[in-house]
This record gives sequence, structure tokens and C-alpha cells, in this order.
Amino acid sequence: MTGAPHEECTMKTVKDYIRTIPDFPHEGIMFRDVTTLFADPRGLRLAIDQLLHPYAGVQVDKIVGLEARGFILGGAIAHQLGKGFVPIRKQGKLPGKTLSQAYTLEYGEAVMEIHEDAIEAGEKVLVVDDLLATGGTAVAGLKLLERLGADVIGCAFVIDLPDLGGRRVLEGLDMPVHCLCSYEGV
Amino acid sequence: MTGAPHEECTMKTVKDYIRTIPDFPHEGIMFRDVTTLFADPRGLRLAIDQLLHPYAGVQVDKIVGLEARGFILGGAIAHQLGKGFVPIRKQGKLPGKTLSQAYTLEYGEAVMEIHEDAIEAGEKVLVVDDLLATGGTAVAGLKLLERLGADVIGCAFVIDLPDLGGRRVLEGLDMPVHCLCSYEGV
Repeated sequence: MTGAPHEECTMKTVKDYIRTIPDFPHEGIMFRDVTTLFADPRGLRLAIDQLLHPYAGVQVDKIVGLEARGFILGGAIAHQLGKGFVPIRKQGKLPGKTLSQAYTLEYGEAVMEIHEDAIEAGEKVLVVDDLLATGGTAVAGLKLLERLGADVIGCAFVIDLPDLGGRRVLEGLDMPVHCLCSYEGV
Repeated sequence: MTGAPHEECTMKTVKDYIRTIPDFPHEGIMFRDVTTLFADPRGLRLAIDQLLHPYAGVQVDKIVGLEARGFILGGAIAHQLGKGFVPIRKQGKLPGKTLSQAYTLEYGEAVMEIHEDAIEAGEKVLVVDDLLATGGTAVAGLKLLERLGADVIGCAFVIDLPDLGGRRVLEGLDMPVHCLCSYEGV
């Protein structure tokens, strides 16, 4: 019996499903658009599978998603794992008692919030979002989770923009970071 | 052989996981908070299972979620079904070419958008969100989907507020509506 002929791998990568929109939200920005990844059934499955890969066999109690695209990923991951989902939202959106954390934007400041009873001290948490840029939102989210006493096991993103430094910031906080692909430049 | 003794059903309902926050976002409103439903692994699973129940065996091509809580449900449902997810977002959030649809709020007007290439004419679509109140957002979403030529097979919500009339509005458009629970009053 001879071996099967070599078959070329025809599986697409996550990056193959992401499109780039120039000059959004303003001139000079190359916006990496994950809506085309999510709209394709194979793209969405590939992204969720790859986001979850490092956590196979790892204890996770809750999935935290950052508003708003992190909700799409976080809902899918929480359901897949049979875990609960907790949103971190922009100020004023959560109806219960919240903790707030300000962070710096390109121009000015924004505030993220979490329900103060959403996570119990010691619960193991995975944070998910679509994009890691400067890390401002993620760091604000991690501070909120730290204030609740959560044990954050990692942060998972579809896209890393390494030139914006977010990964270095998170790793400087001893936070394991998992990204599926990266783009040079801004 | 005698029959097993009668066992009481101890399964909780979706409503058991939803909490009510009085006077949010303003006085007199009883806000039905689904974050406690989503944060509980059994709550989230029950909600997704029950949202999907009427569509078992029904052809669906894409799941459409309304910003922002519809993203959590829509991501989970799309992944569960192995289908793509498409967001309908508030104005200015989607980077590609969009269709826009205005709708009336309690005070003033808001605009929802969809990427014009997100759905092809004839694709079968299920719309999901957490709450059906006046139906304003859902109707705006349905108009966008109609303009793209989508074949919307139904709208699924966790909560119906029947006194606000959204269900009547959607059913008046011959849209099948599926809700998991309802609350009288506003």
C-alpha cells in the first residue's frame, strides 16, 4: 500500500476572513473589520476554536466580554464551555450596582463598568475581545476584575496590533495574552 | 415492577434568573436585568436552548443580533448552529458601507445600521435580542433586513413587555415572534 498523495491544506486562516477598511473611523487608520469573520460560519467557528485552544483542560468559571464586539465572542465561548458570561460595559449601561474604572482615550477619557456582584472573589475568569490595540480598555477591565478579587487566567483577542503596545502593557502586568493574528502599523 | 416515585421538577425557569432593578434608567421603570441570567451557566444555557427550540429543523442561514445585548445571545446561537453572525449597530459603529434606518425613541430619534453586504438577498435570517418593548429597534432592524432582501424567518427575544405593544407591532408585519417570558407593566 502506498501512502496517500500529498494533499495541500486548504483551510483558511482567521486573517483570510478579516477585511481592512481604510480611513475608518478617521483618515489614516486601517480598520480591521471582524464583521466579515463573524458573518462567515467557518470564520466564526475557526475564531472561537482558536480562541479556546490554549484553555482546553484549564479551569474557567466565567467568560468576561468587553463591549461591544467582545460580547459576540464572549457569548459564543461561554455557551460553548457551559460557563456564565459577564459583560464589562461603557458607563451608564449596567442597571445594578457597579464598579467604575476610567481610562485614557486618544482624546479624553472613558469609563468602563462591571456589576459588583457579577464575579465572586477567587473565580477564574477569561477575558475576550476582538482587538488588542493600546490595551486601554483591557487594562481598565482587568482593574475592575482585580477589584472584585477575580483570578484572571488570561486575555484572548482575535487581533493584535503590536505597534500600539497593548500586548506589552498586559504582559507587563503578568497577564497571559493569546491573539490569533497581528497586523503591523496602526 | 412498580413505577418510579413521582419526582418534582426542580428545573428553574428563565424568569428565575432575571432580576428586576427598580428606577433604572429613570424613576418608575422596572428594569429587567438579564445579566444575572447570562452570568449563570445554567441560565445562559436554558435561554439559548429555549430561544432555539422553535427553529429545530428549520433552515437558517444567518443570525442577526441587535446591539448590544443581542450580540451575547446572537454570538452563542450562531456558534451553536454553525451559522454566521451579523450585527445591527447604532449609527457610526460599522466601518463598511451601511444602510441606515431611523426610529423613534421616547425622546427624539435614533439610527440603526447594517453593512450592505452582510446578507445576500434570499438568505434566511433569525433576529435575536434580549427584550421586546415597543419594538422600535426590532422594526428598524427588520426594515434594514427587508432592504437587503433577507428572508426573516422570525424574531426571538428573552423577554416580552406586552403592555408596550412591540409584539403586536411585529405580528402586524406578519413576523413570527418567539419570547421566553413576559412581564406586565412597564
